[in-house]
Amino acid sequence: MSQVHICEVGPRDGLQNAKHLMSTAAKKAWIRALADAGLKEIEVGSFVPPKLIPAMADTAEVVAFARTIPGLKVVALAPNLKGFQRALEAGAHKVTFPVSASRQHSESNVRMTPEQMVEEVRKCAQFPHPGVELEGAVSTAFGCTMQGAVPEDDVVRIATALAQFCDGVALADTVGYANPAQVRRLFSKVRKAIGAKLEGAHFHDTRGLGLANALAAYEEGVRAFDSSMGGLGGCPFAPGASGNVITEDLVFMFEAMGIGTGIDLEKLFAARKILVEAIPEEPVYGHTPLAGLPKGFRAAA
Amino acid sequence: MSQVHICEVGPRDGLQNAKHLMSTAAKKAWIRALADAGLKEIEVGSFVPPKLIPAMADTAEVVAFARTIPGLKVVALAPNLKGFQRALEAGAHKVTFPVSASRQHSESNVRMTPEQMVEEVRKCAQFPHPGVELEGAVSTAFGCTMQGAVPEDDVVRIATALAQFCDGVALADTVGYANPAQVRRLFSKVRKAIGAKLEGAHFHDTRGLGLANALAAYEEGVRAFDSSMGGLGGCPFAPGASGNVITEDLVFMFEAMGIGTGIDLEKLFAARKILVEAIPEEPVYGHTPLAGLPKGFRAAA
Repeated sequence: MSQVHICEVGPRDGLQNAKHLMSTAAKKAWIRALADAGLKEIEVGSFVPPKLIPAMADTAEVVAFARTIPGLKVVALAPNLKGFQRALEAGAHKVTFPVSASRQHSESNVRMTPEQMVEEVRKCAQFPHPGVELEGAVSTAFGCTMQGAVPEDDVVRIATALAQFCDGVALADTVGYANPAQVRRLFSKVRKAIGAKLEGAHFHDTRGLGLANALAAYEEGVRAFDSSMGGLGGCPFAPGASGNVITEDLVFMFEAMGIGTGIDLEKLFAARKILVEAIPEEPVYGHTPLAGLPKGFRAAA
Repeated sequence: MSQVHICEVGPRDGLQNAKHLMSTAAKKAWIRALADAGLKEIEVGSFVPPKLIPAMADTAEVVAFARTIPGLKVVALAPNLKGFQRALEAGAHKVTFPVSASRQHSESNVRMTPEQMVEEVRKCAQFPHPGVELEGAVSTAFGCTMQGAVPEDDVVRIATALAQFCDGVALADTVGYANPAQVRRLFSKVRKAIGAKLEGAHFHDTRGLGLANALAAYEEGVRAFDSSMGGLGGCPFAPGASGNVITEDLVFMFEAMGIGTGIDLEKLFAARKILVEAIPEEPVYGHTPLAGLPKGFRAAA
């Protein structure tokens, strides 16, 4: 049994913000390699209008493929009821809904207030979805490039609303503003409000604090983390953002600490090669794959 | 009063391992800019044989210059008594001695066993050095590229020996093998052995864990950190090593957490420009200078 659960979001959050398109065939090969490395949950795409984000146009096909991989939980993002219905049709095991805690970010990004987004998620929860998990992800929970600081009470209020009808709630540092002290404080506050419904942490490495924030969240009791291979992605509304926390380094950190992830680092590096070969001009980050594992390194038992 | 003390080691640990030489004039301008940004301690060079490390040939001149900056503690590295005497002549306020806890690293690097190195430091401590601080830095304390794991008892033994005649002892992750759990455990063990003589933490970002390790050390009570602007440097014996923990991101992390460093981030970014202009072809790292400070960011009071 792994002690932390890592959800690879590269095929969604990474590719959605990458400059180069990855072919559907390459996505499938990459997802298979990620699953082979031990990832048990992968966010494979987003049910947004294909005209808006062409990189996600093949999400239904990718979901259908990913479902054929035994033991893999297939996640898709949906921004509204229509996207949710498409996710259900495609056969996603879990659907994640971003609700921005920043009013300005929400209105620019989806032309809805946070309250309207919560209502949209409520509609989805009321739509029949037998056996499908629903996650509410509070985005810009740690700050926003437009609004600056996001009041913690706003985050707690949205998380509490989402917890009423979602199976789990995650807090996301969409633009890389979080720091470890804030991570501890906010996860602690939200946990007091919604208890075990608080599950995931989604960090970006924009200011280099991704792993430190993950460590702080772990110390605060968080056991589920999103990350992206090669740190792909970022937020189109966050200039200079260098993407998600890097799967390879996150797995290395936990394994080196003796905290099992269930992921094989060498196989993870092999999956990285598939990513790099598929979109060779896309910037790919990560220290551990370049430096290699320490001499005599032993993964967590 | 700052709550953590940061010693900039770029002019020594960074330039010593850089591929490009920095002129003495540029070193002086950079050191002045670093001091202007609020750095109160800078390791400006190394008294090693100039034939071995040409980048450090001007250390005496750089020390003499740095001494003219009011309030700045000027640090130099010395590997032996001869280097120590040169450091004293030049007027260094503090001299740091690396003693490798890895037998293989020590023998390759300085052709002495760790015990012989401890004896060399003892000789220096016995040499008159009025008003000059002596630091013993236990290098490869968290692992070694040659030897692999370094027994924690070896680190405790060397730290204990050094604490007898040094003013302070630091633990250095020379090759970027440390993880946060190990950092907490080893600092705790060494503190039990030598108490307040344990001062500094020196991390490398080889596998991306530099800030997470600094956070763990902070939580373990460490308040003095080495770092290098732009993450310059690395260890010639650590292939792929991407250098020291990055000053800009380290300062940002602490300030964002509300932990004062006494350093002005905007002025720090100005000092970075001097570095980049002086050796433009040298790889320079750091997320915060590229992404910029968060909107509405306030430094610690």
